Amino acid sequence: MQTAKESRSDTVERKKQKRPIVDCDIHHFTGLNLIKPYMPREYRELVETYGTAMPGSMHFNGGVGGRMVDSFPPEGGPAGSSLAYMQKHLLDPYNIKYGILTGESLGVQATINFDYAAAYCSAVNEYTYEHWLANDKRLKGSVLIPKQDPTSAAKEIDRIGSRPEFVQVLVHNGAMLPYGNRYYYPIYEACVRHNLPLTIHVGGEGAGMNSAATGAGHVTHYIESRAARPQVMMAHLASFIFEGVFERFPTLKVVLQEAGVFWIVPYLWRLDQDWKSLRVQTPWVRKKPSEYFRDHVRVTTQPIEATPNREVFDQMMEHIYAKDTMMFCSDYPHWDFDSPQLALPRLDDELADRVFYQNAAELYGFPSIGSAREEESE
Amino acid sequence: MQTAKESRSDTVERKKQKRPIVDCDIHHFTGLNLIKPYMPREYRELVETYGTAMPGSMHFNGGVGGRMVDSFPPEGGPAGSSLAYMQKHLLDPYNIKYGILTGESLGVQATINFDYAAAYCSAVNEYTYEHWLANDKRLKGSVLIPKQDPTSAAKEIDRIGSRPEFVQVLVHNGAMLPYGNRYYYPIYEACVRHNLPLTIHVGGEGAGMNSAATGAGHVTHYIESRAARPQVMMAHLASFIFEGVFERFPTLKVVLQEAGVFWIVPYLWRLDQDWKSLRVQTPWVRKKPSEYFRDHVRVTTQPIEATPNREVFDQMMEHIYAKDTMMFCSDYPHWDFDSPQLALPRLDDELADRVFYQNAAELYGFPSIGSAREEESE
Repeated sequence: MQTAKESRSDTVERKKQKRPIVDCDIHHFTGLNLIKPYMPREYRELVETYGTAMPGSMHFNGGVGGRMVDSFPPEGGPAGSSLAYMQKHLLDPYNIKYGILTGESLGVQATINFDYAAAYCSAVNEYTYEHWLANDKRLKGSVLIPKQDPTSAAKEIDRIGSRPEFVQVLVHNGAMLPYGNRYYYPIYEACVRHNLPLTIHVGGEGAGMNSAATGAGHVTHYIESRAARPQVMMAHLASFIFEGVFERFPTLKVVLQEAGVFWIVPYLWRLDQDWKSLRVQTPWVRKKPSEYFRDHVRVTTQPIEATPNREVFDQMMEHIYAKDTMMFCSDYPHWDFDSPQLALPRLDDELADRVFYQNAAELYGFPSIGSAREEESE
Repeated sequence: MQTAKESRSDTVERKKQKRPIVDCDIHHFTGLNLIKPYMPREYRELVETYGTAMPGSMHFNGGVGGRMVDSFPPEGGPAGSSLAYMQKHLLDPYNIKYGILTGESLGVQATINFDYAAAYCSAVNEYTYEHWLANDKRLKGSVLIPKQDPTSAAKEIDRIGSRPEFVQVLVHNGAMLPYGNRYYYPIYEACVRHNLPLTIHVGGEGAGMNSAATGAGHVTHYIESRAARPQVMMAHLASFIFEGVFERFPTLKVVLQEAGVFWIVPYLWRLDQDWKSLRVQTPWVRKKPSEYFRDHVRVTTQPIEATPNREVFDQMMEHIYAKDTMMFCSDYPHWDFDSPQLALPRLDDELADRVFYQNAAELYGFPSIGSAREEESE
C-alpha cells in the first residue's frame, strides 16, 4: 500500500504528449483554510470558532469547537484528553466520587459499514479501559456498541460487559428506527444478561444512516438541532413503552442523557391520557406510561431547563419523579458544562442526596451515600 | 378510455392455445374482506373497527374509523357529511357562533404529483364554499393549498383568499422540510397579502413524500404516531423562530392545531435558554423565542393534556400565555371530540371569554364577544 506521504513525489517527470487535450474534470484543492478569506466575516468567524458545517458534522456548535474555553489541557492536546488535568479541573475540586465516561466516538453508530463500526467500538472500549479506567478508580466506563447491527452490538456487550469497570451500554439518540423496535432486542437481552442500563446520549440525529433529525425533515441551524434532541428522545420513550420493551425485559433500565428533562412532564400527561383511550390496541402495555417511566427510566440533569420561577421548578421536579429518576451530570468538557454548584436551584438535603449521588449509586451499583460520607470522615 | 365497468366482460371467449405455458406472476384478488377471516381475532377486530393499516393510512385510529359513534348522520353517509345534522348535533346546542371548517383532505399535501395536488385542493375549496360556507353563515373556511409546491400554493391563496368566507390557510404537520425554511416563503407572502393566518393541523407525518414521523424514524403503533405530533410541531416552531420568518413577515400568525398544548411550556424554556447562549449564530432572531411565540403563535385546545392537579394546570395556562394564545376547538366529528363543557377545567370568566371566543375573534376578524352577547340578548 502506498501512503499519502510516499506518494508525494518531487521528482515526477512525465514526458509531454503531442496530442492537445481538454480534461473536463480536475479537482484542485479548495480546503476550508484556503477559501475562508473569501467568506463574509460572519462565516469566517463561525468556521474559525466551530469548524465546518457539512455532512458528517452538519451544524456549528457552541464554545470553542464545542468545548469550554478552560477545558484544554495546559500541556496541549484536545479538551478531555488529559486524565491529570481532568482530575485537577473536575474530579478533585467538585468531590466527584464516581464519574461515568462517555467519550467522543458516538458518531460511529451512524455508519452503514457495520464491521468497521464494530471494530471501532471495540477499540474505543479497550483504549478507555487501558488509559482511563485502569488509572483512576473513580472513573467508570460505557460500553460503546455498533448499535446499528444489534447482533454484533450484543457480542461487544458480552465481550466487555462483565468487566466491573464498565457500568452501562451507550447509544446515541439518532436512529433509523425508534429504540423500542424489536430490531434492537439482542442489545437488550445482552444488557439484561450483564445487568447494565442502556444510556441514550444525544448525538447522531439526522447523521449518516439515521433518519432526518426531526419528523419535519432536516433542520438548518445548530440551535434547531439542539431543539430536535428532545423530539427524538420522545420518539424513543414512546417506542420503549408501547412496543412493550419493559414488559419483555422487566429489569432493563434506560437513561436519557442531555436532551433536557422537563419536556418529559407534559409528555407523560399526554401518553397517560392517550393510553387510557387506546390501550386496547397495545394490550401488552399493562401500566400507565408514567409508571413505566418511573420504574425504568432515569434522566441526567445537563442541560436542565431554567423555569420562570421556583414554584414551577418544584412542581416539575415532583412530576418528573426526580427523587427516583434524576441523576446529576456535568457534560465535561463541552461548552455548556454544568457545575454541581450551579446546575440546579438549591435542593433540600434529601433530594440533593438522591440527585447528586444516590440515584446513580443505585443504578450503577456504587456504595451508598452513607458509606461514601463515612469514608470521607475517616 | 375504457372504464372498469365497461371492461367487465361476461362474453370473453379466447381460443385455447396449444403450447403448454407456465405463467410466473398472476395477481389474484386478496382484498381485506376476503383475508380477514384468516386473521387472528385481535386484528380482525382492529380492521373491522378502523380499516386497514398500510402505507397511505399507516396506523389504526380510535372510535369507529376515527369518528365518534354518534356523529354519523341518521339519514346515512359519513360522519361530518351532513350540514343539517352538524347544526343539530354541534352548532346549535353548544351555541357555536363561528366554526372553522378544516375538512378531511389534508393527505393530498403529501403527494409528489404537484399538479394533481393543486387541482384537488381547488376542488375541495370550491366544494366547501358551495355546500357549506354559502349555507350557514356561522361556518368559515380554510384555504387548502398544495403546500408541497409553494408557487402553486400561493396561486390558490390568491385565487380564494380574498373571499371573506375563508379565514385561514391550512397545511398538515407532516413535511419534507420544517416550515421555517425559505422554500415556503411564497406561501407566507400570500398569507400576508390576504391577511390570513397559517394553520398547521396534525396529519401527514411520515406519509408520502414527507419525512418519517419522528427523528428516530417510522413508528409502529397509532398511539406512537399521536405522540409524534408534538415532536413535529416542535420542529416547525423552532424553524419559524430561528429561520427568522417572524422578522421577515411581521404580520404573519401561525396556529398550531391538535398536537396538544402544554409541551410548549418547557419547550419555550429550553429555546429561550439556548437562544441566550447561541444567538450569535442567528443574529436576525432579535427577541426571545417565547416572545415570538406569544406575538405570532396561537394554539387550539383539543386534545389538551390532563394535568395531575389544578395548581399545575393554572401554571401551565399562565406560562403558555393562554390569555393571548389559546383558542377552543372541538375536532368534531373525530372520536376524541372535546365538548366546550368538558374540554377544560372551569376557567374564570375573563379567561373563558378569551379562550372560547375572543382570541379567535381577534385572529379571524369576527365581531367581539361584547357584540355577540348583545346580539344574543336582542
